[in-house]
Amino acid sequence: MIREEARRRLEAAGLPPEDAATVADHFAACEARGKVGHGFSRLPWIESLELRTAGRPEKVASDGVVDRWHSRGALGYLVVRAIVDDLLARPPATARLVVAESCFPTGALGVWARELAEAGLLAVMTATSPRRLPSPAGGPPLTGTNPLAIAVPSSDGRPAVADVAMSAVTWGDVMAGRRRPEEVVPFGGEQAHKAFALAVGLELLVAALAGEDHGLVVLAAPPGHDPVPSFRALAEGIRLPGDA
Amino acid sequence: MIREEARRRLEAAGLPPEDAATVADHFAACEARGKVGHGFSRLPWIESLELRTAGRPEKVASDGVVDRWHSRGALGYLVVRAIVDDLLARPPATARLVVAESCFPTGALGVWARELAEAGLLAVMTATSPRRLPSPAGGPPLTGTNPLAIAVPSSDGRPAVADVAMSAVTWGDVMAGRRRPEEVVPFGGEQAHKAFALAVGLELLVAALAGEDHGLVVLAAPPGHDPVPSFRALAEGIRLPGDA
Repeated sequence: MIREEARRRLEAAGLPPEDAATVADHFAACEARGKVGHGFSRLPWIESLELRTAGRPEKVASDGVVDRWHSRGALGYLVVRAIVDDLLARPPATARLVVAESCFPTGALGVWARELAEAGLLAVMTATSPRRLPSPAGGPPLTGTNPLAIAVPSSDGRPAVADVAMSAVTWGDVMAGRRRPEEVVPFGGEQAHKAFALAVGLELLVAALAGEDHGLVVLAAPPGHDPVPSFRALAEGIRLPGDA
Repeated sequence: MIREEARRRLEAAGLPPEDAATVADHFAACEARGKVGHGFSRLPWIESLELRTAGRPEKVASDGVVDRWHSRGALGYLVVRAIVDDLLARPPATARLVVAESCFPTGALGVWARELAEAGLLAVMTATSPRRLPSPAGGPPLTGTNPLAIAVPSSDGRPAVADVAMSAVTWGDVMAGRRRPEEVVPFGGEQAHKAFALAVGLELLVAALAGEDHGLVVLAAPPGHDPVPSFRALAEGIRLPGDA
């Protein structure tokens, strides 16, 4: 599939042309970064949703420290796009926390965070999603796969981008038929309690800021230092997170 | 060992009485939470350091969004104590990012984050330390064990506190003789690339904000919601991170 076909199908599913282009662009960017579980394979699922196409993401409050957004029913991708655009248009002087309420699905956070880092902003992002991860000790699913993305700008033009979901396999891989639902457990094997603890911490962090519906939290700041080039030199050719 | 003996030995090592009490209190709090690798077992190592006992942590800049601190040579525990005290005395209206430069060792971040959460503040903390973790693909040590602590207040008085180091075993356990140094690798077994990615992301996040020396980053915010009680109910008796 190519971006253009995805765009056409998203329009046919009811998205306005500009929104269809935004979502198709994110799918294409995910494919280009190898994050295929967040790419075109998501299209049949999006097509199956009852899209509330009239809702527009809205910045509902801002005090110079925290920006609060609400999806107003818009697809999560469109909320993240609006937030990233707003951060690029009005970058924080020292730092800004952005909280988006009722925001799902958000796609590959590392792809959005990379865009901020390529524009010179340090970015930390996390988001919640349907509860799928149980405790390693058993019991019901308690948390989403809850990715944490950290993107750090670099003067050499190659940001470092870590983007880690707390699950052993991604839900996207399940949707694409590459993995089974029962493999969606906290990663780490014998030490899965660590990934579970991170998943719970991120779940409750987002819920404490954004409420009980799925949410997104972004911290953006201009870096005061440029640690990536010397870190790459220290790593001596070892592949770093987010590198191709 | 008891707190009082630790306090006496820290004074004998050159710390002023108030500072010795602060460090001994942190050791005792770590022991009480089962984080023995950050407890009294650290004392011989502290005694072996050349302590710069005259340095006092200093808040060097504040713009209402980001507070910047420098240790001025003070032991990291004393910097974190000063930052936590400052956040408790002047809590953020919506959020505050705190960056501490040249800050090491910081102890068990979950213990400090819990103190903030017990006072009603959502707290996220991370810190860097000597490079000990290599990539799962090999090569030199590239990152510290780089814990991430997330503490979320609860109206039932029992905050949720996740505190996860990215290493399979802690350096504290190595110092205490319970583990071998070569076991200090990213956790996760076959998926250790995930913990390594998080360790690299946190390493570069802290370095981008605090510079090349070890640093500490804290995000504190009053929560707008109270998700912990309903989450505990959903978990149906499953032990949550940070619970005794």
